Amino acid sequence: MPLVTKTISEVREQVAAARRAGRTIGLVPTMGALHEGHLSLMRRAREECGLVVVSIFVNPTQFVAGEDLERYPRDLPGDLRRCDEVGVDVVFAPEAEEMYPPGDSTWVEVTGTLVEGMCAPHRPGHFRGVTTVCARLFNIVGPDRAYFGEKDYQQLKIIERMAADLKFPLAIVPIPTVREPDGLAMSSRNVYLSSEERKAAAALHRGLRAGEEAFAQGERNAAEIVRAARRVIEAEPGVRLQYLELRDAETLEAVERVARPAVLALAAFVGRARLIDNVVIGGADRQCRG
Amino acid sequence: MPLVTKTISEVREQVAAARRAGRTIGLVPTMGALHEGHLSLMRRAREECGLVVVSIFVNPTQFVAGEDLERYPRDLPGDLRRCDEVGVDVVFAPEAEEMYPPGDSTWVEVTGTLVEGMCAPHRPGHFRGVTTVCARLFNIVGPDRAYFGEKDYQQLKIIERMAADLKFPLAIVPIPTVREPDGLAMSSRNVYLSSEERKAAAALHRGLRAGEEAFAQGERNAAEIVRAARRVIEAEPGVRLQYLELRDAETLEAVERVARPAVLALAAFVGRARLIDNVVIGGADRQCRG
Repeated sequence: MPLVTKTISEVREQVAAARRAGRTIGLVPTMGALHEGHLSLMRRAREECGLVVVSIFVNPTQFVAGEDLERYPRDLPGDLRRCDEVGVDVVFAPEAEEMYPPGDSTWVEVTGTLVEGMCAPHRPGHFRGVTTVCARLFNIVGPDRAYFGEKDYQQLKIIERMAADLKFPLAIVPIPTVREPDGLAMSSRNVYLSSEERKAAAALHRGLRAGEEAFAQGERNAAEIVRAARRVIEAEPGVRLQYLELRDAETLEAVERVARPAVLALAAFVGRARLIDNVVIGGADRQCRG
Repeated sequence: MPLVTKTISEVREQVAAARRAGRTIGLVPTMGALHEGHLSLMRRAREECGLVVVSIFVNPTQFVAGEDLERYPRDLPGDLRRCDEVGVDVVFAPEAEEMYPPGDSTWVEVTGTLVEGMCAPHRPGHFRGVTTVCARLFNIVGPDRAYFGEKDYQQLKIIERMAADLKFPLAIVPIPTVREPDGLAMSSRNVYLSSEERKAAAALHRGLRAGEEAFAQGERNAAEIVRAARRVIEAEPGVRLQYLELRDAETLEAVERVARPAVLALAAFVGRARLIDNVVIGGADRQCRG
């Protein structure tokens, strides 16, 4: 079993000992409720690093008022079993007070085009919470490599930006989205779905694939690609789209015509679950099935 | 002479080599135009650390529109001589593009009581620029200890807060203000003063001492302590006070009665120079003369 700790000082001891032994440090930041998507990150970290640290922390600062902070799925015993299966060395599962003691008042925030569209306007303050907690985790663990899923595409781009801008001495390693057999992206929030909703949710990836297919057929007009995806998704009455946007894959600026890799990204409500997904079109295909 | 470099990668090589040799790393962040105040920081770093890195960077993000970014004094050859005298190992003097390459868009910001008063309302965005550059410098150098002057008291408290909140694995070391024989706090901006202004500027510290003296005589009412200081400073027609405030020495909240250590702090224009100074009252006296 991995060593499990709630304290910053104990994580640091473990990392310092591994460093002295010349080992590379890998960090997989998570909010727990680990699924195959997370395991994919952890396995890659295990392959690449001498010490693998998984953080499990349902970070309150990235939840917007009215969101699912209280009911977000928590399963530490199950998470530890999954970490053990992958051979994780250290699980850092702090209480909120360890990460944000009284008086804490520092924010890390990425501005500009990365936070203009997609989830940002619908979850004001969310990405500020993400970068704020990741900066802390990077300083606590001091990893050489930190692993993030492409499922949370905007988050990935924002964290890459933050790590580069603040000169964190580490590499951000993106890991392809892991999907269910019917294409639904793995997500801790999938447990919110009833069996009927679960079937409806498959329309999200079907829609994204329809957008991909339009591009493959030669369509370069962004509105047409989005329309092709939207048509498929809106045919499913159990899904309520929040947004469906085609944006530059690096800057996340809105695009009118696809001339460079672009990300077709969405958020949708299926029942009470808010789900996100994306595909990159016009680039190397890095999606895989779990 | 110290090794002088403009690149992050070269600083990191120097630091990595020193780390391998088991040396402690000290960082003295400066904007150059080094004076006895800076030298006092550097000497302490030299005493305490195996490798002393001084950064010299006139950080554009901490200057507010209309301030003295363009005319801020710059003297790299003189600075290097002073670094050499103290035995500094590495001088990191990057161009703005090294610190903020195109696309850079991440800010580090302390919120709350520390940025409610004193310089904050008069220099909107200033402290955000300070924390943003210091977070970068901490990640570039990775020091064990970083040295800051008490002359910039609010900056010191904000950086202490930022470093603690973001869990930077380093100690912030405060260094007492160094003063001219007539009490004027050493500042790179003192070079803006004409000889007449230079004489007038001594009223600032005389005023602060009058506030200290009122406290020493038993006065605990903040307004009375401020009044005692203000009376002395306003008797000098060459000085235009921007603010003169008595605040809690740790939280920087306004105080009405002095029951714990408090900082009597001011900013004032003398000619075209904006100068700041402070004394801590009700605490251990750590001021010294240069």
